[in-house]
Amino acid sequence: MDEKLVKEIVEDLKLRQERADKPVPVGVSNRHVHFTKEDFKALFGAEAEPVLCRQLRQPGFYACNELVTVEGPKGAIKNVRMIGPYRPYTQVEVSMGDSKVLGVEPPIRDSGKLENSPGIRITGPRGAITIKNGVILSKRHIHFNPGDAMAFKITDGGHVRVLCGAGTDREAVFERVLCRVSEKFALELHLDVEEANAAGLKNGDAAYIV
Amino acid sequence: MDEKLVKEIVEDLKLRQERADKPVPVGVSNRHVHFTKEDFKALFGAEAEPVLCRQLRQPGFYACNELVTVEGPKGAIKNVRMIGPYRPYTQVEVSMGDSKVLGVEPPIRDSGKLENSPGIRITGPRGAITIKNGVILSKRHIHFNPGDAMAFKITDGGHVRVLCGAGTDREAVFERVLCRVSEKFALELHLDVEEANAAGLKNGDAAYIV
Repeated sequence: MDEKLVKEIVEDLKLRQERADKPVPVGVSNRHVHFTKEDFKALFGAEAEPVLCRQLRQPGFYACNELVTVEGPKGAIKNVRMIGPYRPYTQVEVSMGDSKVLGVEPPIRDSGKLENSPGIRITGPRGAITIKNGVILSKRHIHFNPGDAMAFKITDGGHVRVLCGAGTDREAVFERVLCRVSEKFALELHLDVEEANAAGLKNGDAAYIV
Repeated sequence: MDEKLVKEIVEDLKLRQERADKPVPVGVSNRHVHFTKEDFKALFGAEAEPVLCRQLRQPGFYACNELVTVEGPKGAIKNVRMIGPYRPYTQVEVSMGDSKVLGVEPPIRDSGKLENSPGIRITGPRGAITIKNGVILSKRHIHFNPGDAMAFKITDGGHVRVLCGAGTDREAVFERVLCRVSEKFALELHLDVEEANAAGLKNGDAAYIV
């Protein structure tokens, strides 16, 4: 036996065991929109400001009371919720099922990477805009703060495998899950509704890096 | 080194390699209904018969022209398609997302296993019925004919792991996929729309038993 190889295998098994001891809470993202201040004002009026509906697990992020309709070439979806605060770009995050209703073919992207993504028409109570791009399917990812990243021995931009729904009929391993590290983040695996349902998950359930 | 263990590991690796060489085509099941003859007549009229819309990959099964509305305590879903031919039981197969729209909590079940599943109201053009049970989330499964089963070295009722979307951003491994063997079956992995979307799959894509 090759001693170096054995040592590598043992180290790998130890790392897996360490990670598997620490659950990652699941956050399920329903379809939602992020707005620039300018786009928000065009839709809700110059005097309006986003109103907090519910604080999210990620510090500083919140679901707003504001709802819009997004309309693609094939169909429209009403009551799409804004997530605040404002961003430097307007971005619509939908599920693959939603994209078929709308008739658009969004790419799977990390937040903010909008080049060559499709546009869409957005209607609010005080106006409508058409964005030239910004519709994406969110790439599965985990938010880590630097302490979590150290504990899990992962690095920003890396990818991991994540076991979800362990022991259930919908047990699944999601491959190639992006790791994002920031001091602003709280530990959370972000999946869209279809991904969560495919693994039988709800908000706050435990997933495991394997 | 334990020779018996080494032999077992080698056999296991060989089996995995053999299976991985043979793709399993994916069949995506949208929400649908199977009817008894009696329930069909109650909804579409005594003289009506199901009309073929599209042959499915499973021999003898077909999507019908007939559409119904299913209505739960919270909401209704229109245009739910019948799959023919008649069955000895009426069964409504929905996605987890659908179940939330309807306001029901169906169990994850193999087809026909309907005990303690919720009921629902079903409306057709000529009448309405309320079934006492029959709403399920379909348990992921693969149809094998006996030749396929032999080639893959699986048995009826067993479970396998299935790799989907290999090489894509939505690569996923579905665990505990039920194997069903019958002379009537054609080789096909059945997933619901959310499971398929979670792994970025469409009808006819290749999945692999791993």
